[in-house]
Amino acid sequence: MITKLQVKYIQSLGQKKFRDEEAVFIAEGPKIINELLGDPSIKPVTVYAIREWIDEAMPAAETTAPFELIEIKQQELERCSFLHTPNQVLGIFKKPVYTKLDFSNTVSLMLDGIQDPGNLGTIIRIADWFGIVNIACSNDCADAFAPKVVQATMGSIARVKLMYTDLAELMKAMPDIDLYAATLDGVSIDNLQPLRQGIIVTGNESRGISGTLLQYCKHKITIPRIGHAESLNAAVATGIILSHLVKGG
Amino acid sequence: MITKLQVKYIQSLGQKKFRDEEAVFIAEGPKIINELLGDPSIKPVTVYAIREWIDEAMPAAETTAPFELIEIKQQELERCSFLHTPNQVLGIFKKPVYTKLDFSNTVSLMLDGIQDPGNLGTIIRIADWFGIVNIACSNDCADAFAPKVVQATMGSIARVKLMYTDLAELMKAMPDIDLYAATLDGVSIDNLQPLRQGIIVTGNESRGISGTLLQYCKHKITIPRIGHAESLNAAVATGIILSHLVKGG
Repeated sequence: MITKLQVKYIQSLGQKKFRDEEAVFIAEGPKIINELLGDPSIKPVTVYAIREWIDEAMPAAETTAPFELIEIKQQELERCSFLHTPNQVLGIFKKPVYTKLDFSNTVSLMLDGIQDPGNLGTIIRIADWFGIVNIACSNDCADAFAPKVVQATMGSIARVKLMYTDLAELMKAMPDIDLYAATLDGVSIDNLQPLRQGIIVTGNESRGISGTLLQYCKHKITIPRIGHAESLNAAVATGIILSHLVKGG
Repeated sequence: MITKLQVKYIQSLGQKKFRDEEAVFIAEGPKIINELLGDPSIKPVTVYAIREWIDEAMPAAETTAPFELIEIKQQELERCSFLHTPNQVLGIFKKPVYTKLDFSNTVSLMLDGIQDPGNLGTIIRIADWFGIVNIACSNDCADAFAPKVVQATMGSIARVKLMYTDLAELMKAMPDIDLYAATLDGVSIDNLQPLRQGIIVTGNESRGISGTLLQYCKHKITIPRIGHAESLNAAVATGIILSHLVKGG
């Protein structure tokens, strides 16, 4: 059973201001909740679930972390859910906050002004597919802990480390790490060798990477265009670049 | 000025049934409208536009095709638009219908059950970037001429040839064209040479390519996973595969 105050609290977490104040985020649905519960780097706070999840899905969650479990009814879930089709369970988790990441000896991502939540979520999922751990976002990127973004990451939000910062300052502070800017007029990705260390910079889809940041990027790289489309979606472009520059082993 | 009947007609074209009956589709906004007007393969029927577009953007449209131009007011545009933010102009165009495509000596796409309009539009835009012309869709794919899909293609809808058909029948009828199925357990795309002829088959994101179709696919191909995400978005996967298998020149 859920109180009016709890519903109000959950709803307030739809806003970045309250997520930041409380340092928590919301995730929903058995698949992502079980992934988050099984991840030692993510701390669960409260899980609201209908009986079906508690009986069937919860036992499979590989968690040892303590959390408050509250059984609710389907219509109570509907009152607090952010989904069109609420799905058994809603969890509140502590937001992992990173103010410093180690970019050496690995390939990382910097995102400049990715504002569409779906795009940001998809990029986080792509990063996780290619084993990218560090993602530095400009302060004007969408919030990765917004419910829409969390859902679009399909659980990958737990496996990447995100920081929000002034990217120009960050770039200036790391002169030894090569930056690869995704642009429309750089070196073809077909002519590049896989990276062992470096940061791939993706810009806002309509305006690209800001001029201020571009001047710090040693390499401008491009996905060769064979046909006629004017551009590629920012998430698709990030996926293509990572598939060429990041190799396992 | 727009009549009630015209608003009703435009609104009806939000439904596939009426788009099929009338064999037309809707596009909106100066960028895509001007691209469509400039494309000799697309026949415009009626264009509803506010004075600003008529004075400023229309003169730049490289069209010689005749069409009915109707000036409307901003609030009239808002009454008939499918966009959250109506944008100067809405056009009705004849739907290009293909019942047969030539798959020889080129690389093409087959889509099995891509149901998300945004994904389908993004795939059409990716195809256009890589110079893919032929796209065969299973009958349960989203309709490529739905307003949401047309907008997501960003004008690329004019440059690809789409057919909807029973893909199994189509595959059976072309035993000489190699099919490359995007799966999670095939040959790494890193080990494949660029194609001169072939069809890349992308499946529905949650269930993949249907078993019936898989048996016709000579090659199963895979994007190597280095990290932990369970899957990639269907449009992202299609983009990555095309970037490896389709080269210009």
